[in-house]
Amino acid sequence: MKNTPFSSIPGRPITIEGALNVTARVLISRADGAPNFSMRMFELGPAGHTLHHKHPYEHVVYILEGTGELIHEGTTQPIAAGHAILVPPNEIHQFRNTGPGSMRFLCLIPNADAIPDKLK
Amino acid sequence: MKNTPFSSIPGRPITIEGALNVTARVLISRADGAPNFSMRMFELGPAGHTLHHKHPYEHVVYILEGTGELIHEGTTQPIAAGHAILVPPNEIHQFRNTGPGSMRFLCLIPNADAIPDKLK
Repeated sequence: MKNTPFSSIPGRPITIEGALNVTARVLISRADGAPNFSMRMFELGPAGHTLHHKHPYEHVVYILEGTGELIHEGTTQPIAAGHAILVPPNEIHQFRNTGPGSMRFLCLIPNADAIPDKLK
Repeated sequence: MKNTPFSSIPGRPITIEGALNVTARVLISRADGAPNFSMRMFELGPAGHTLHHKHPYEHVVYILEGTGELIHEGTTQPIAAGHAILVPPNEIHQFRNTGPGSMRFLCLIPNADAIPDKLK
């Protein structure tokens, strides 16, 4: 059982090439006993973006704060606080912050592919 | 692929005995092509609460708005916006709104047990 304010979990800067101005927190994972999937929080500073990539597992996302764009298979879609997003497996995607402040979102992935030390 | 403001998904009142003042939205599920787990949003009005129960699958929860209590295996814990919560399988739990306004949270479950027409 875990019940923790996200702010008590230190953010970790993501320094992978292709990611810009991204901080990650692992909120719930296998380390907590989660059997099937993990919840991470990403914070993108102004002009920040995640990797433009694809992988064999899905993202289930909820935008908590801010405004931005989702690049998906060559399209560009507006995203904003309150959006629920499914990125299916093997589809190219990138989250971009286009607002003046931070964009924060939850991004959940299945545990079979959860590697907390990598940005996914 | 799905990218939808939660507010565009109609809320459905939960009328199961033991739940009070609860509205549910299924944001992402198997119906959208989610392979492994589903994301629902619950909104509890003043004094609202979910069922006091247990089941053989976990909850991964994020509190979006409001303040309340998590009843868990005979304990009472404060919860508030920004809390990340794991309720492991087979542990008795209940979410209670104790604030003056609504309490809203995301609650994710594995798809093997996802039955969108039931409150879980």
